[in-house]
Amino acid sequence: MKVFIAGLGLIGGSFALALRDHGLADEILGLELGEERAAEALRLGLADRIVSFEEGVRQADLTVLATPVDTIPLLAIKALNLVHDGQVVIDMGSTKGELCEVISMHKARGRFVAVHPMWGTEYSGPKAAQHGAFAHRTVVLCESESSDPDAVQRVEQIFRTLDTPIVYMAAEEHDLHTAYVSHISHITSFALANTVLEKEREDRHIFDLAGGGFESTVRLAKSASATWVPILLQNKYNVLDVLREHIHQLQLMRRMIERDDSEGLREMIDRANSIQRIID
Amino acid sequence: MKVFIAGLGLIGGSFALALRDHGLADEILGLELGEERAAEALRLGLADRIVSFEEGVRQADLTVLATPVDTIPLLAIKALNLVHDGQVVIDMGSTKGELCEVISMHKARGRFVAVHPMWGTEYSGPKAAQHGAFAHRTVVLCESESSDPDAVQRVEQIFRTLDTPIVYMAAEEHDLHTAYVSHISHITSFALANTVLEKEREDRHIFDLAGGGFESTVRLAKSASATWVPILLQNKYNVLDVLREHIHQLQLMRRMIERDDSEGLREMIDRANSIQRIID
Repeated sequence: MKVFIAGLGLIGGSFALALRDHGLADEILGLELGEERAAEALRLGLADRIVSFEEGVRQADLTVLATPVDTIPLLAIKALNLVHDGQVVIDMGSTKGELCEVISMHKARGRFVAVHPMWGTEYSGPKAAQHGAFAHRTVVLCESESSDPDAVQRVEQIFRTLDTPIVYMAAEEHDLHTAYVSHISHITSFALANTVLEKEREDRHIFDLAGGGFESTVRLAKSASATWVPILLQNKYNVLDVLREHIHQLQLMRRMIERDDSEGLREMIDRANSIQRIID
Repeated sequence: MKVFIAGLGLIGGSFALALRDHGLADEILGLELGEERAAEALRLGLADRIVSFEEGVRQADLTVLATPVDTIPLLAIKALNLVHDGQVVIDMGSTKGELCEVISMHKARGRFVAVHPMWGTEYSGPKAAQHGAFAHRTVVLCESESSDPDAVQRVEQIFRTLDTPIVYMAAEEHDLHTAYVSHISHITSFALANTVLEKEREDRHIFDLAGGGFESTVRLAKSASATWVPILLQNKYNVLDVLREHIHQLQLMRRMIERDDSEGLREMIDRANSIQRIID
């Protein structure tokens, strides 16, 4: 299979490595804007050669869009304008509503499969690419009933080979749930980092005292704005909804602390403890 | 050295293991309320025998208070009422202001050293105890100028042996900084867990979609209320101050998302990124 990957950063680059590691790609064509990043991607073996978008889509059996989510809808249209029936186009973006709406009436809609592998790290760019990235994480296929059965099957085959369980969802459903389990985590982490940087002017003390708990809650605050600003804005209404609830929960805890309401705090913390049935 | 540890949970139990692993304790006496937990602590080798508080303090060269922070000030007074000059009493609590105030005028104040090792996990009880817990983490000694030099030296010797760097702080300074780098992380994690549990009624989707980022931000939400309610209330004014700033930061981000202010969001996220100079 000849694969074209637009965007050889964390996700696109890790997908390239996974395809190679499982012998799924005979040749990988890549697109990476910026000479330095393109050279780095080649050096790291994330692609065999760098091509233009049109060249890549025309030649590849599988085109993969792994660029920031605000660029994906238009690239999807441009790719679908070029493909014929043997070819498949997928994206790997974290939001799906706008994408699925934009491509919905395209004559070649069937050749597109909307894909979101639930994996990532706080790092970005070609050097962030990792081997074994998607194994045992879930991948979501959105609106797969609008894709041609052979295109869906080809995608399913790939992720089965990568040991990635597949779930199926409508685009709105996907965007709602990712707001709860992914996007809000990033917002709280960014806000927590800024809180500490704002209040704690003496760096020395953070260095000395910041333990493992602090590190794990602010880890995501290292994530790139180029990735996350488009995600937060594309999923605006869901993100605002969950953010309002989160601020409300913090205000509840604040009021309990103000009133020395140990019983109320105990209940809130005990309730929060039940998250372990989900993440253990 | 004969050691008495009151509270053989996560911290006290891990300290017992560290002392044993480094050959620092000839015998460990322990106190753990609740028969089941006491039996578990003995089974796990966290103590050689369970004794009463008075018996433990009287016999031990070093008494360690590793109970919830709301119980430490009174236990400290009770221990100091019993000790003579060859003996040392330390605590391992996460707040220091009230403790240091309460013991300040005690005739035997010099025998007490206020200690906070900056290590922990989200688990609790004797089975949460770990080998190697304190190595390469910082330990804070508070108001050590109020302790007898020989008592401070004995504590310094122990933590040097455990490979734990030592920093020195006033109690108020300690409580201020731990609010920023530890206590607020727990609050956001509890609130985030409750946000998701509140909004995401269909557990199946959280199970499917929750990735590594979500796990790391809500990990601390598994922490026990018995530990954390007393910490949040004992450090009330610092915690409220940082919590107000955190809610403010979240409201800023909310307003930017509402207004599609991508430039403002980019700046906030880029600023948050600088946390990596602290946690890397």
